[in-house]
This record gives sequence, structure tokens and C-alpha cells, in this order.
Amino acid sequence: MAPLNADLLQVTLNESAAAPDFDNLVFGQKFSPHMLIVDWNNKTGWGVPHIKPYGPLSLSPAAPALHYASGLFEGMKAYRSADASGKIRLFRADKNMERMNRSAARAGLPTFDGDEFIKLIKALVRLDRDYVPHGEGQTLYLRPTLIGTPDTLGMGVPTEAQLFCICSPVGNYYSSGSGSKPVSLLARTDVVRAWPGGTGCYKLAANYAGATQPAMEALKHGYHQVLWLFGPDRQLTEVGAMNLFVVFRDQSADGETTNYEIATAALDDGTILPGVTRDTILSLLRAYQQGQVAIDGLPKPERITVAERKVTMDEIMDKAEKNQIAEVFGSGTAAVVCSVDKIGYEGIDISIPIQADGMGVFMRTMLREVTGRQWGAIASPEWSTVC
Amino acid sequence: MAPLNADLLQVTLNESAAAPDFDNLVFGQKFSPHMLIVDWNNKTGWGVPHIKPYGPLSLSPAAPALHYASGLFEGMKAYRSADASGKIRLFRADKNMERMNRSAARAGLPTFDGDEFIKLIKALVRLDRDYVPHGEGQTLYLRPTLIGTPDTLGMGVPTEAQLFCICSPVGNYYSSGSGSKPVSLLARTDVVRAWPGGTGCYKLAANYAGATQPAMEALKHGYHQVLWLFGPDRQLTEVGAMNLFVVFRDQSADGETTNYEIATAALDDGTILPGVTRDTILSLLRAYQQGQVAIDGLPKPERITVAERKVTMDEIMDKAEKNQIAEVFGSGTAAVVCSVDKIGYEGIDISIPIQADGMGVFMRTMLREVTGRQWGAIASPEWSTVC
Repeated sequence: MAPLNADLLQVTLNESAAAPDFDNLVFGQKFSPHMLIVDWNNKTGWGVPHIKPYGPLSLSPAAPALHYASGLFEGMKAYRSADASGKIRLFRADKNMERMNRSAARAGLPTFDGDEFIKLIKALVRLDRDYVPHGEGQTLYLRPTLIGTPDTLGMGVPTEAQLFCICSPVGNYYSSGSGSKPVSLLARTDVVRAWPGGTGCYKLAANYAGATQPAMEALKHGYHQVLWLFGPDRQLTEVGAMNLFVVFRDQSADGETTNYEIATAALDDGTILPGVTRDTILSLLRAYQQGQVAIDGLPKPERITVAERKVTMDEIMDKAEKNQIAEVFGSGTAAVVCSVDKIGYEGIDISIPIQADGMGVFMRTMLREVTGRQWGAIASPEWSTVC
Repeated sequence: MAPLNADLLQVTLNESAAAPDFDNLVFGQKFSPHMLIVDWNNKTGWGVPHIKPYGPLSLSPAAPALHYASGLFEGMKAYRSADASGKIRLFRADKNMERMNRSAARAGLPTFDGDEFIKLIKALVRLDRDYVPHGEGQTLYLRPTLIGTPDTLGMGVPTEAQLFCICSPVGNYYSSGSGSKPVSLLARTDVVRAWPGGTGCYKLAANYAGATQPAMEALKHGYHQVLWLFGPDRQLTEVGAMNLFVVFRDQSADGETTNYEIATAALDDGTILPGVTRDTILSLLRAYQQGQVAIDGLPKPERITVAERKVTMDEIMDKAEKNQIAEVFGSGTAAVVCSVDKIGYEGIDISIPIQADGMGVFMRTMLREVTGRQWGAIASPEWSTVC
């Protein structure tokens, strides 16, 4: 069984690649000229990695990827430095590879050496470097994917698979010049994203199938995204395809904020996707509390508590009424961080404080600190690698 | 927006079709020479239906079918009459079409006129009629499928889709000559197939992704399939990809059976797939109770209760100990009905009574009554249609 081996890479150039076009970038609608693809089967293991022109896959109509959702993916980005070097970086790619292998094991799909796959992704990004946008907040979004492909309807572990990566120049979810665009959420009690014993903590294709229609219905009701609740106590879990952070504030008798608690759902019950941006935010905040990193703009470390814990809709309603919610934001690879200004719940709208630029103190600071490290403006050698 | 229209069918014949080969039929590994495919998009609706040679799909590597499990399917069969007519029939195809459209609506995929799709499937079966096997219990398994196909990574409702049907000659799950092959189940408490507010009651590809690895682990532990439990009271929900029936018996002081209750999980919480075979069994038993149909071999109607209700592992263990379980069987399109002889649970094996031929009274009778109507040996004009 051959392991995945980046040294075997073969490249077929796209001779008819369109010139880069970074106008009107909508997420995931334009693609760079090349894609990476590696076949696997259960007899010989991983085959020769190929970089070839972006184009359709030839896939059996019986493939488990189509019938049994035998597939999983990652979301990554290539970031072009704003300085004269123009260096292109990946951010915490090792975390994506770890998660992708956990997902593969859960789905009965083959695992692989993540370092080899990172080498291949870097080769792809280097080849398509002209398609990494230059604008602020713009990136080349990378979509590593693994699917089960044999020509059989059997429900067993797939005997063949394809690992591939496609690349899409994407725009700025936020816009730091004119301020951020906060989102409104519809908290739904009738649909449930994930369950203990299910696959919510793995990045399987299957987790997204049930979300499409509820998200459409939220849009029709005037909300941007779904806030996924769980359990009889209606815990806040995730929002759309992002992790969720709630910042609570304690106040003195005269209404001044004394302390902050920034809370996000814990990972212990298997329903929460362990987001890389979520982990980055928690890591930065804890390093700040411990004096290991300086972060301008945050309250003093001793005034901040960082908690991975259950937050319920009762707590949200209670603390919103008492003016004890400072801000709410989502985090994910696509949007980095994204403020929430409203939560619709059982027919009422709960207003969430938002500043004039569409952000809050924690969201704005995390946006700067995370993107600074992603684009290389803030040195972060342990997290950032150059392609 | 054009509706699905079977009158527009175009056919491209497979000029290099292999001769039918019904030896060593393994489920879903051989395919008939032709497939049906219809494209849809959100601007013009349903396109021209095509029957063409079975072969790979050309699919965007960004298709939501691969990334977000935007797909669903049905399981149907074409049955060749054993009599001289050799007529080929479908069984309750309208139920499959109803369910497929419910699945499509839940997945944000386009719905269609089920009668038109049945016409197209019949045309496909007529063309590939030589690939409907002749052996007892053998059929041409039909796999209608609907997938989201646009060339975009956006998470919205797919703007393009493909409806297709492939056909696979399949063998006999049971073998009425040498008796049935009962299956053993591993009742798992650590993985959950479906939950209220999820998609368990729709036949989405997504429901199967989490089942592959647990099923493999059950095999490694010496069990054939997983018995999916739900909730703190460990309700029995489904087994593998089948619905589950448990037959309880009351007994007199001398151990003679007085009454039977045949129980299967209710459909009310959205976690149970509304199986066509499940519905057929319930319908037949209720018609028998009401004197509308005669069924040889069953206890007298007044001694049978038919229940859609919760059955927990506590009840199974308690009644197994008291010798009050008469039989357990699964039901589904692929296997029709399949007896269970053992349930592994928390380290112990619960033996389920099984007769010398590997069946029980209810399973054997339902096998005869259901397959009789499927193959046309028992007249069933409301359920059975000729291709």
C-alpha cells in the first residue's frame, strides 16, 4: 500500500487558462486554472498525484460519494502578503490536515500523510500564484476534498477514493474601509444540525445537507443565517457554517462594565466543529491572559474570562434584557470573524449591541490579530508557512 | 420552467452492451447497459430525458453533491414474473416517488412529477428487460438518484441538478430453498443514526455517511449489522438500512402463546425512514386483522396486535429473559424481510428465537405475502404495475 508521496507529482499545464479576474468575487464561483487530484484504492494505496487543468471529474453514477455522502472537505486559504515581498502563505494548514484525517477515519475513507498533502497544495498554489488576489481581505480559497468513488452501490467501506483540491479566488467577507457587515440570525428550534453520536464534529459533507433548506427559509424571513440550537435547554451551538462566540459583560451599579466573559460552545459532546479560527481566537485570548502576547484594544487581561461552556437561549434572553451582552460574533475560515446584530427567536428579535463600524471590541480586535497573522503582517512562524 | 416530461425521451443505444450475466450476483456491483438521466436548472426547469449507455458522469469538482451531500435516492426493483408471461413489474413505485419528492424538498433540490419519472423508469426497464434476472428472488434493482451539480462552492440551494436512474441485477438476500440467513445485530449506544429535527425520515445520502464505519466495526466484532438505538431509554430504531419489527408473545401459565404483538418504531419523531416494505407489512397485517385479506400461516386475527410504538432495550432484555420474544426481523427493499437471531448489547448477546429454516412465523409469512405481490403471483393491482 503506497503512501501519499508528493515527490511523485506530475503536472499537466492548463494551456487555455483565463487571465486572473478579481472583479465581483462571489464565494466559490470562479476557480483557478489548475486542480490537484490523487487516486487511492484499497489494493495499491495512494497513486501518482496530478496537477491538471481545472475541469469536471469523471465519476461513476454508483459512486458512494453520490449515494451515501461518502465525502469530506476542508476550508483553507492562501494569503498574499501586502508588503513588497508578495509572499503567499498558508495558515495552520497542519490543523486542517489533522481534522481531515479524523474526518476520513470517521467516514471509512483512507487517511494520508498530511505533510505530503500540504506539499502538494503548496505546489498547486505556487503554480496558480497569479490567481491569489491582491486586494485587502481577498484570498485564494482552497478546498481539499476526499470522496468515495468505486463503481458499486455496496454500502461497505469504499474500495476507491479520490483526494483533490480546487482553488477559488474569493473576496472580503468584511470590509475594513467602510466597516463590517453584521449578520442577523434566526434561532431555529425545529431543525437540529448535529447530535451526540453523530458526525457534527467532523467536517463531513453529510453535515451540510440538512442545512440548505433551513438557511433558505431564514433568508426568506429576513435573516442572514441560522443559529443552530440543541437540546431542551436550547444551547447555542453554531451559526450557519461558523463557530459562535458570545461576549457577556458584568456591570457596576452605575452601568460601567467591570468584567467580560467570552464564551463559545465546548467540544466535548461531539456536536461542534472544532474550527481552526475558533482555536486561533481561543489560543490568542489565553496567551493574552497569560501575558505571552500583547494585544492592543482588549480590556485588561484580569478583566477577561475565556470559557468553553454551554450558553442557552434563556441566558441570552435574560442577559440581553439586563444589557449584559457586549457582542456576539461568528468565526470561520471564509469570514474570519463576523459580528451578529440580531437574533430572531420564537417570534421576537433580540438586539445585540454593535458599534458604528459594524463590529464590537472583541470581534474587531480578533479580526486584526487573526488576519495579521494570516497575511504575515504579524510574525507567526509557528502558524504561518510560506508557499 | 419546464416540468419533467416523459414524452420528450431520447434514447442512445449502448452498442457494446455485455450479455446478461446473473452468476454470483453481489448487490450493486453489476449494472445494466443503460441509464436514464435528466438535467435540471433553475432557469429553464427540467430538460430532455435521455436514456444512454451506462457510464461515468461528468461532474464539477465543486458540485454540492460532493461537498455538501446534496443528494438523495430511492431503492426500487423490477420483478420478473415466474409464469410463462414473464411480465416485468414495479411494486408501489408511487410511494417511492412521493418519498423522493419529500426528500428533494428537504434537501433544497427540485421536485418533479412522479408519474412522469415512473414512465421514464419503465422505458428504461423495458429497454434493459434482458437484464432482469430469472432466478427466484432475483431482481433488477433500480436506483433513482437526484444530485446537486452546479460548478460552485456556494452553500445556497443548488441552481443545477441531475436526476438519474441506474439498474443493477441483484441476487436473493434470502434463499427459500435452503432456508433464510438470519443476521446478528450489534446494538450501539455510542453512535446515533438520526435525531428529531434532523433528516432521518428522508432518504438523503447524508443519512448514510455516519453508518459506514460503525457497520465495519460491527462486522469486526462478529455481527452482521448495527442496531441503531436512540435516546436515554435506548429505543430500537432501525437496523443497518432496514426498518425493524419485533414480535412479542404473551403466554399462559403453561407456557403456551396466547397473543402476539408485532411492533415497529412509529414515524412521529422524524427519525425513522418510512420504508415501503414497512408500510406494506403494516398494511397487510391490518387488512388481515380487519378480515379484508386472508393470510395463511398467521395466528388468528384476534390474537394479533399491530403497534407502531417505542420499544426499548430494557423491554427487549426483560422479555427475552421471560421468553416473550417470538421473533425479530428487518424489512427493506433490498432484503424484503430478514430475520434476526442475536442482538449484542453492552457485552452480552441476547438470543432471539429462530426456527430451523432461519425464519419465524411472521417473517416467513410476510416474505411469502410481500414477494408474492411483488412478483405477481398474488394479484395486487393497486400495488403492482407492469412495465
